[in-house]
Amino acid sequence: MLINHSSFFLKHQPAIFPRILGHEAMGIVESVGECVHEVVEGDTVIPIFLPDCGECPDCLSNKSNLCSKYPFNVTSWLGREETSRFTDVNGETLYHFLYVSSFSEYTVVEIARVIKIDPATPANRACLLSCGVSTGVGAAWKTAKVESGSSVAIFGLGAIGLAVAEGARLCGAKRIIGVDVNQDKYEIGKKFGVTDFVNSRNIGDKTVSQVIIEMTNGGADYCFECVGLSSLVHEAYASSRKGWGKTVVLGVDQPGAMLTFSSFDVLLGGKSITGSLFGGLKPKSDIPILIKRYMDKELQLDEFVTHEVDFEDINNAFDLLLEGKSLRCVIWMNK
Amino acid sequence: MLINHSSFFLKHQPAIFPRILGHEAMGIVESVGECVHEVVEGDTVIPIFLPDCGECPDCLSNKSNLCSKYPFNVTSWLGREETSRFTDVNGETLYHFLYVSSFSEYTVVEIARVIKIDPATPANRACLLSCGVSTGVGAAWKTAKVESGSSVAIFGLGAIGLAVAEGARLCGAKRIIGVDVNQDKYEIGKKFGVTDFVNSRNIGDKTVSQVIIEMTNGGADYCFECVGLSSLVHEAYASSRKGWGKTVVLGVDQPGAMLTFSSFDVLLGGKSITGSLFGGLKPKSDIPILIKRYMDKELQLDEFVTHEVDFEDINNAFDLLLEGKSLRCVIWMNK
Ligand SMILES: [Zn+2]
Ligand SMILES: [Zn+2]
Ligand SMILES: [Zn+2]
Ligand SMILES: [Zn+2]
Repeated sequence: MLINHSSFFLKHQPAIFPRILGHEAMGIVESVGECVHEVVEGDTVIPIFLPDCGECPDCLSNKSNLCSKYPFNVTSWLGREETSRFTDVNGETLYHFLYVSSFSEYTVVEIARVIKIDPATPANRACLLSCGVSTGVGAAWKTAKVESGSSVAIFGLGAIGLAVAEGARLCGAKRIIGVDVNQDKYEIGKKFGVTDFVNSRNIGDKTVSQVIIEMTNGGADYCFECVGLSSLVHEAYASSRKGWGKTVVLGVDQPGAMLTFSSFDVLLGGKSITGSLFGGLKPKSDIPILIKRYMDKELQLDEFVTHEVDFEDINNAFDLLLEGKSLRCVIWMNK
Repeated sequence: MLINHSSFFLKHQPAIFPRILGHEAMGIVESVGECVHEVVEGDTVIPIFLPDCGECPDCLSNKSNLCSKYPFNVTSWLGREETSRFTDVNGETLYHFLYVSSFSEYTVVEIARVIKIDPATPANRACLLSCGVSTGVGAAWKTAKVESGSSVAIFGLGAIGLAVAEGARLCGAKRIIGVDVNQDKYEIGKKFGVTDFVNSRNIGDKTVSQVIIEMTNGGADYCFECVGLSSLVHEAYASSRKGWGKTVVLGVDQPGAMLTFSSFDVLLGGKSITGSLFGGLKPKSDIPILIKRYMDKELQLDEFVTHEVDFEDINNAFDLLLEGKSLRCVIWMNK
């Protein structure tokens, strides 16, 4: 199982404790509820915070991944029910986290949030597709629909930004420009297809968009904001090519943050802006495709895992995260 | 030839006079310059302010209609050259307007801004495709790519908004909701496929977006702002369906006006925002298609013409425009 970017959700979910954290994982079905036929005991599965009920207008549409039956909500419960299904040894409630709560040997997850996968997939790779890496890859593949030969600019080369690069590489992007304040990210980025790097602390009087417009002779075809700063969304938008440039917002800014665009720029620029939750992926159908592409050695996952620790050392994983030393740290429950 | 929505451009182009106004027209080629082979004397043509050079990356791409060779610019000249090619009887310069200057028996237009059309097209219908009607129809057809069976909301039922309705009707939209402060627009709108009407002055405490979300059970698939008010762009965005809603900005607000969206809404809503100049149409290839669809009795143009006057009565046409009485008033040079 896996530790990751839980800081935002922790901060903005009602800070209720005690609770079981973790929302990126892979596991084996131990048992199923009464009306559940989609998976059976022993199946290899990935839990995903974003539901895919398979029957609402959104889940039935190929244009949306925002299930209307179980709307995304900040909750401390299992899902529909106002229960977490967890108690401590004294019978007191342990709260749920993002519908997954995977820092535990056993968890309870709704069937709409469980994806059956190929059991041959290595556990320490499958878990990566449970949230962040899928989000980045999906943003390039599904939300932006990056085309072969196109140019891409990625603002922020954390795990999500690198996953966007990986997705763009898979889509055949010719040029993938990474933007970060940390020069080390260039070398890391190259593993995921980054071809050019802009250190935004090292461009003198120029803005990042000026630099990218010069590099691409007019702007990048697709721009991704993966940091969570409104000001960077503007730079991303300004960096995108007039006539067809697409800006995808992936970063999570503070609640209340606003994105502001000049009405003239929007009208006359022919560009578009969109957001992407879970990279626009439809969990039940798209995750198995990503698994297959990994097994076929097309999608790179290995490179995201910088550390692996045993469950009893989980606090070391938090330390690595806080120190900015890990992309993804896999936590083994039972190896 | 045709009078129309010139007020914005007049206001924001350097207010240089004397000049020859008019930018929607149809005419016959009187003569061509040296290297011009695309049209010859006697051809029936439509002048269009938006160039289509046929050789720059934008004109060669099917994703952009924003020519890079002749970027859109507010100018009083013919185009590339700093001349209008017009003088008055005393030899003093008469300025050009929007590269067309059609309120005149003769004008000079660059080849990139002239479209050859079927000479069988009635003059008082062909001229309608020179700007406003094409913009609206194109916004539904090319920019939004409205799908058969979809729902559409149009903010502002002026000529452009009605043309959006007509475009959406042609695309097979099932539901076309018109929003306006003038109840009379409902009857007019019905001619162009409007199926439902929201009088924004008559909805009590509700916002327009609340009403549209209720009417459509979640929001319209495509929303078009055709007034030019930032606040309406927000309502349009709020009225669009989560997961796939597309908002197209067509209205021209004051220079400096800003569009503001909540970062969370953009991230979590799965919606997109885009702008559209000339409805995303590529003049040289798309205008002949619209002409053909009119000749085939698919595209309705007749209903846009509310008045026709002779050239000597052109000031009556301005009066009708200012009084809000005309959708389009055709001005005949020589009948
Ligand atoms: Zn659903
Ligand atoms: Zn996550
Ligand atoms: Zn061009
Ligand atoms: Zn116009």
